Order: sequence, then structure tokens, then C-alpha cells
Amino acid sequence: MSATPRYDILGIGNAIVDVVTSVPEQFITKHDMQKGGMALIDTAAADALYAAMPAGIESSGGSAANTCAVAAMLGAKVAYIGQVADDQLGQVFRHDIAAVGVHFPTAPLKGGAPTARCLIVVTPDGQRTMNTYLGACVTLGPDQVDPALVADAAVTYLEGYLFDPDAAKQAFYAAAKAAHAAGRQVALSLSDAFCVARHREAFRDLVKGHVDILFANETEITSLYETNTWAEAAEHARADVALAVLTRGSEGSTILRAAETVDVQAVATEVVDTTGAGDAYAAGFLAALTAGKTLAQCGKLASFAAAKVIAQYGARPTADLSTALAQL
Amino acid sequence: MSATPRYDILGIGNAIVDVVTSVPEQFITKHDMQKGGMALIDTAAADALYAAMPAGIESSGGSAANTCAVAAMLGAKVAYIGQVADDQLGQVFRHDIAAVGVHFPTAPLKGGAPTARCLIVVTPDGQRTMNTYLGACVTLGPDQVDPALVADAAVTYLEGYLFDPDAAKQAFYAAAKAAHAAGRQVALSLSDAFCVARHREAFRDLVKGHVDILFANETEITSLYETNTWAEAAEHARADVALAVLTRGSEGSTILRAAETVDVQAVATEVVDTTGAGDAYAAGFLAALTAGKTLAQCGKLASFAAAKVIAQYGARPTADLSTALAQL
Repeated sequence: MSATPRYDILGIGNAIVDVVTSVPEQFITKHDMQKGGMALIDTAAADALYAAMPAGIESSGGSAANTCAVAAMLGAKVAYIGQVADDQLGQVFRHDIAAVGVHFPTAPLKGGAPTARCLIVVTPDGQRTMNTYLGACVTLGPDQVDPALVADAAVTYLEGYLFDPDAAKQAFYAAAKAAHAAGRQVALSLSDAFCVARHREAFRDLVKGHVDILFANETEITSLYETNTWAEAAEHARADVALAVLTRGSEGSTILRAAETVDVQAVATEVVDTTGAGDAYAAGFLAALTAGKTLAQCGKLASFAAAKVIAQYGARPTADLSTALAQL
Repeated sequence: MSATPRYDILGIGNAIVDVVTSVPEQFITKHDMQKGGMALIDTAAADALYAAMPAGIESSGGSAANTCAVAAMLGAKVAYIGQVADDQLGQVFRHDIAAVGVHFPTAPLKGGAPTARCLIVVTPDGQRTMNTYLGACVTLGPDQVDPALVADAAVTYLEGYLFDPDAAKQAFYAAAKAAHAAGRQVALSLSDAFCVARHREAFRDLVKGHVDILFANETEITSLYETNTWAEAAEHARADVALAVLTRGSEGSTILRAAETVDVQAVATEVVDTTGAGDAYAAGFLAALTAGKTLAQCGKLASFAAAKVIAQYGARPTADLSTALAQL
């Protein structure tokens, strides 16, 4: 293990291209969607839903990949592991993450399922509802996780969505083990309340035993600990992890580290599309944390990055973020 | 020939997916681009340029296809002929044009070149500069033009870009012949000043002998007639075609029909990205014209549609346009 790791952040996640479109409120009910959530769909359902969707725009997505892209835009040194296919959308994904300076060594899958797609419908209130066809992501496994790369990153950041495909769950454990063996930190985003519900027991064990830094929003953290109030869930998180970073939408966020509690205000902004807000928050937080900033500064950069993403269409900011970290 | 055609507009053009990204002004000079123009590039140049481009968004494009999409959004009955490949970007193109209600009967190309891509860089002034890799478009030919479909459209709208691939030029002539044989009208957009320069003699013959409605901006019309002033070029156009529709950017547009001249004001708007402005203008004009509106009303709807596209990123409006035609 080198004393100074080459990367600040190594993200591991489902490598996905987003198809984003605006829909009226009725579209959600008509298609039996859980508004604000992420549902997994198979090929047939993806084809049917896509056929029913209005014209859209395509852009690179994936929760941890978004976090990596935004962190790199903020100036962090970032690497990413995720599985795309050897197809056009896979090329788009690779281009976009490389274009912001993220090291992406995972070779494309040949001859298997296509690159994953997330069909995202945005309602007039700015809420996004996601439907993911995992495609090539289901083949991401421990073989794609290079322990030397993990050892060379200060923080390995894992998305909870990795628990949906079986092999990725094993990749997750392999990465966490390699990180701790090298004296590095493991961060987890709970990703989605429905994802937490699907994997609650595994997540609880994981958070207690393998995670140093936990990111979760209100519905995710209360779902994880099955508490009635956010405050109770927050105390569970404080006890379980070294650093809990709990977001609360427009009410801001709260950072818990041992006895310390830091409240952070949200940055007020017009709400256009909330796709990627949590991902950008984690990016700002980790970029500041690995740059040695205080928790309050980490929260500030996190909220700034989230606001930039919420004020626009799509998960990766088009604005220039390169000076924000230095201005803290 | 039926007295009432089933379609108001049949568009024929290069079926293209756009990759749009913002770049600083220097990017244009560094890559030797003609700002505001469209250049044809081969696979190697496309790969090199894409590698140098920032992260982008992908969305359906193609000049005549954009016109068809916007006209359908305005309520016109529209069909489109264009060649995509049997690949992911081809599926995106097909989805998006079908989603707005355009009939798109052209079967995808199997086992040949991939779906065409246009790499579009947008500078801070909102100008777009385009680099097109034609891919599957080079196989569009007369075989793809169904004379019965042409006969069933009030106006067959052809983009000048069709003169770049050889077979498409033949498709163009076949469509124009079928339209006139059925007593229908032929509209042409000159597309681009560089395209006009590449095919000036053919375009002059075409405009004089085969075109009823001509769309052109200032640089295109002065390039076509090689005149020093717009006014001279306009008089040539008046003499050559039944209806000349000449756009002048923020200065509005002028419509010439025999001795009649109608000046139309541009709709003032914030300039975000001019991609698709001319396409949307033609859409508004033809949607109103085929609905039996006056020339002034045609110009008004055209300017409205163009303004909607200029105020946003990408060539196809995200706004709801469905009531604009009725409100004339």
C-alpha cells in the first residue's frame, strides 16, 4: 500500500445510459410506477415502456458513475468500475466518463446483453421515476474488481444498486475487503428506498460490518432501520458507521461523526429535474472530504453540486464546477 | 391520386442522431471548423473528434426529420423517409419520430454502416457547428421512396443535404417526379451554405425546374445565386419558384409569392442553442400552409416554432406546441 493513493475516489456501480423524458402526472399512475423510485424491468417491459414514452434525450447515467463524473468535474482524482457492452450506448458511456477525466478500465462485454438503460420519466414537479433494464450490468462480478486499483483509492464508493444483480454483490464484498486490507475507506450509498427494502438484512450487516461512510436520504435510512422517525434512524446510523451523511431534500442534510453533528443547509434552486441529485451530493462531499476539508465544508460542496444538477435536465451538470472546491 | 392527401407533409432526409455538447470558442479554431456550418466527416475523423469532445447528450436529429417532428407536434399529419441502421441509435431515432406521431415506414439497414451521427458543438454565443458522419444514410436511394406515399402527401419536403450522398440525390429526383406526377408540391430547404457551394449547379437547375417552395437563409440564398446582396438573390428566387421563404435570423423572414412580398418579424427569445432553428421554422410554415393559412400566418407560426427551439438545448422542442396552430 502506498501512503498517498493515486485516486481520491474509486466508484463501483451499474454502468447505465439514461433515457430522460418529460411526462404528465397521469403517466406514472397509468404505468403503475412508484413515483420517485427505481424499479427493475426486463427486456419486454423495457420495450413496452419505451414504446409508450415520449421522445427523449440520452445521456450517461448510473448512480456511482454520476458521482464519479461530478467528483472529477470538481477536481478529484477518480476511477470507476462498471460493465457496459460493446455497443453504441456503451461507447457513449465510456466517452462521457472519460471526457471528464475519470479512469475507466473495465473492458466492454462482448456478445452478451446490451448496455444497461434507465428509462427516466420526469413529472412537472421535477421528480424523476426510474425504470432500469440492467443488461450487461448483470455480468459485473469480482473478476472486474482489481484489488490493486481499490488499494490505490482513498475511498471506494459503492452504490446499493449493486445488490440487485447477484454477481455485483460479490464484487461489492470483494471491493470492500480489498479496501480495508489496504487501509482505505469504504463508502456506501443506499441508492433507493425500494432497493433497501429488497436487501434490508444484507444492508444492515454490511453497514455495521463493512462501511465507513454511509450516504442515505430520509426514506432510505428509515427503511433500513425500520424506524418511525428520521431522528431514531439517524442515531442507529451514528452507532453503526464512522461517518453518516444523511440528506433531507430541500431541508438540507445532517452529518454525524461519533458525538459530532453538523447540520447543512440546502442551496436554494429552481427544481427542473431531480435526477442525480443524491449522486452529485455524494460527489461534492467525497471530493471535499478527500481534499481534507471540514465536515461543514464537505456538506457545503455537496449541497452546491446537488443544486447544480437539480436546476437542469439530466444527472451530470453542464456547468463548469472546476473552481468550486478551491473556493470553499 | 386522391383529392385529399392522407399526409400534409412527407419529409425525406438524412436520418441522424445528434450528439450535442457545449465547447469554448477556441474548440472551433483548434479543430479547424467552419463555425455555424455542417461538415461531412469520415469514421476516423468522427472517432477523433468525438474523443476530443466533452461529455454530451444524444437526441434524434436530421434536418428534414426535425421539421417532420415539429410539424407533427404542431398538429400536421406527417410521414418521413430516411435510412437508419438496425442498431441502438437507429432504435432511438425510430422511437423519437414515432413518439410525436410521424409515420416512418423506412426499414432499418441490416449489416451495413451504423446509424448516422452528427457531432454538434455549441459555443457560448448559442451557435452550433455540425460535423456529420453519414453512416447508413449513404444507402438511402430511390428504392426507399414509395411513389404512392409521395402521392399521398400535399407537400414533399426535401433537405439539400440529400445531395451529399449519391444515391440520396437520385431518391430526391424520384420523389420530386412522383410528387409532381400526382399533382402535389415539392419543397426544398437549401440546408447549409457549404452544402450549396458543393452542389450549386445542381441546386440551381433543381430550384428552377423541380421546386415549388424554397426555404433558405441569407448565406444559402446568396451562395446559390452568387449575388452580393440578399435583395438581388431574393429577386432571383422570386422568379424561380412559386413560393420563396427566406429567413434572416433575428431580423425575421421574408416570403415571396409572385408579386407579393410578406415580411415577418422574428419572435424575440433568449438564444441557448440555434440547432434546428431553420428546421423548426420550415415546420411551422408548412404546418400552417397545408392547413390553409395565409402567408403572414405561416410566417408567424414558423417564427414561433423557431423561437421555441432556439431557447433550449437540442433540435426538437420539449414544449407543448399542440395549440399554437389553432391560436393563429
